[in-house]
Amino acid sequence: MLERADHLRVVLVGTSNPLNIGAAARAMSNFGFLHLRVVNPYEVAFREARSAVGAAPLLANAEEHKYVADAVADCTLVVGTTAVRHRELHHPLHRLEYGARVIRKELARGPVALLFGTEKTGLSNDDLSHCHWLMRIPTREQHISMNLGQAVAVCLYELVRDARSAKPSSEKIEKRASADDVERISAVLLEALHRSGYVNPIAIASTEERVRRMLRRLNLSSKDAELWTGMLRQMLWKIRTKQ
Amino acid sequence: MLERADHLRVVLVGTSNPLNIGAAARAMSNFGFLHLRVVNPYEVAFREARSAVGAAPLLANAEEHKYVADAVADCTLVVGTTAVRHRELHHPLHRLEYGARVIRKELARGPVALLFGTEKTGLSNDDLSHCHWLMRIPTREQHISMNLGQAVAVCLYELVRDARSAKPSSEKIEKRASADDVERISAVLLEALHRSGYVNPIAIASTEERVRRMLRRLNLSSKDAELWTGMLRQMLWKIRTKQ
Repeated sequence: MLERADHLRVVLVGTSNPLNIGAAARAMSNFGFLHLRVVNPYEVAFREARSAVGAAPLLANAEEHKYVADAVADCTLVVGTTAVRHRELHHPLHRLEYGARVIRKELARGPVALLFGTEKTGLSNDDLSHCHWLMRIPTREQHISMNLGQAVAVCLYELVRDARSAKPSSEKIEKRASADDVERISAVLLEALHRSGYVNPIAIASTEERVRRMLRRLNLSSKDAELWTGMLRQMLWKIRTKQ
Repeated sequence: MLERADHLRVVLVGTSNPLNIGAAARAMSNFGFLHLRVVNPYEVAFREARSAVGAAPLLANAEEHKYVADAVADCTLVVGTTAVRHRELHHPLHRLEYGARVIRKELARGPVALLFGTEKTGLSNDDLSHCHWLMRIPTREQHISMNLGQAVAVCLYELVRDARSAKPSSEKIEKRASADDVERISAVLLEALHRSGYVNPIAIASTEERVRRMLRRLNLSSKDAELWTGMLRQMLWKIRTKQ
């Protein structure tokens, strides 16, 4: 989790659908951001939103404000989100990947507000006048407008995202099969193939080679090697008793 | 957008709430992934989901399957998503940051399936048996389970995310004020301060220095510098006529 996640204030301005407030609350709780502020919600009973699965306390503690100015008063950085690209924006506009980097740095120093506008029209020019700069999620030109709860989830994910985790995970490293394990499978498999008449006597050597290469390409785990050995032995036993 | 986004198949298995299928469709359309497959949805009338704002064609074209095996049949890589960390997982489990990197590489080669399970219990062990490995979104321990539509949005965002965009944006580079512009402001401001009696005659030099440093710290745009010059000139004019 982010070290100073407690410094972020997610500010929902003029949200129409209380289910979207609940969904935003759930995503906030998922990613460890617990301070929600709501400005002029359309539906006053938003605190009961059933979409806030697992985030009821967060929603109960949400602050309600009448004006954006009050909702961002304690923040040293105020960032607005927008889907718009070509409107006459009077603010610098950054992609989420960069914007989140700047927000993370500022969170180490003090409170930061992240604003989301209404479902239909986003943040108004008046809302935007409280922002230092704007941020957009890299959606495609043909369909830029996201669902509010999904937009909140994506922005918060980018904030907690850990670039160092883009390496192979150590959460489950399987022990690989040893050369011995693989050789044991080869032996049983080849005997089974011989006894089943799969191997043409003239081509014995090349068939064995092909089988060995194939087994090595499987890149088996030690557990899977054991499983294969067991299965093949059983088949070999059956083949032997049949002869 | 991702180059071979057309290779991804988002597979929703046993989804209960058609609104979640619609929300998933919307996020897919936002990020440019147009192939949705639905396995055994609880509600057969999911194609009318109103949550698919702007993604109705995608939803109309969704394939419906009875078995996971059919839904992933053409894929060379099948990845399951899970919130679970400590269950007896028989699969390697990667964080989204790394998993998405592997998926992106594989998409360049061929079709990849990304599976999402039911809202309540996720993917079953039988569903998981079709997966090469599993991926999890880095939610916090105390609240790991995400809303389905939000989980889809976050995974797809990570796939289209562009690391090179984590640099300052060139979308709106404001022309900075020149030293001349700033000096012009200094001159007007300092004269106004003198005439208002702000400056203690003994401390003239240090005050002027402080004001100059402050103005440079503002890092003004050329437009803002013009605005400031105009405002200060007006105030200076008023101050002069008052004397």
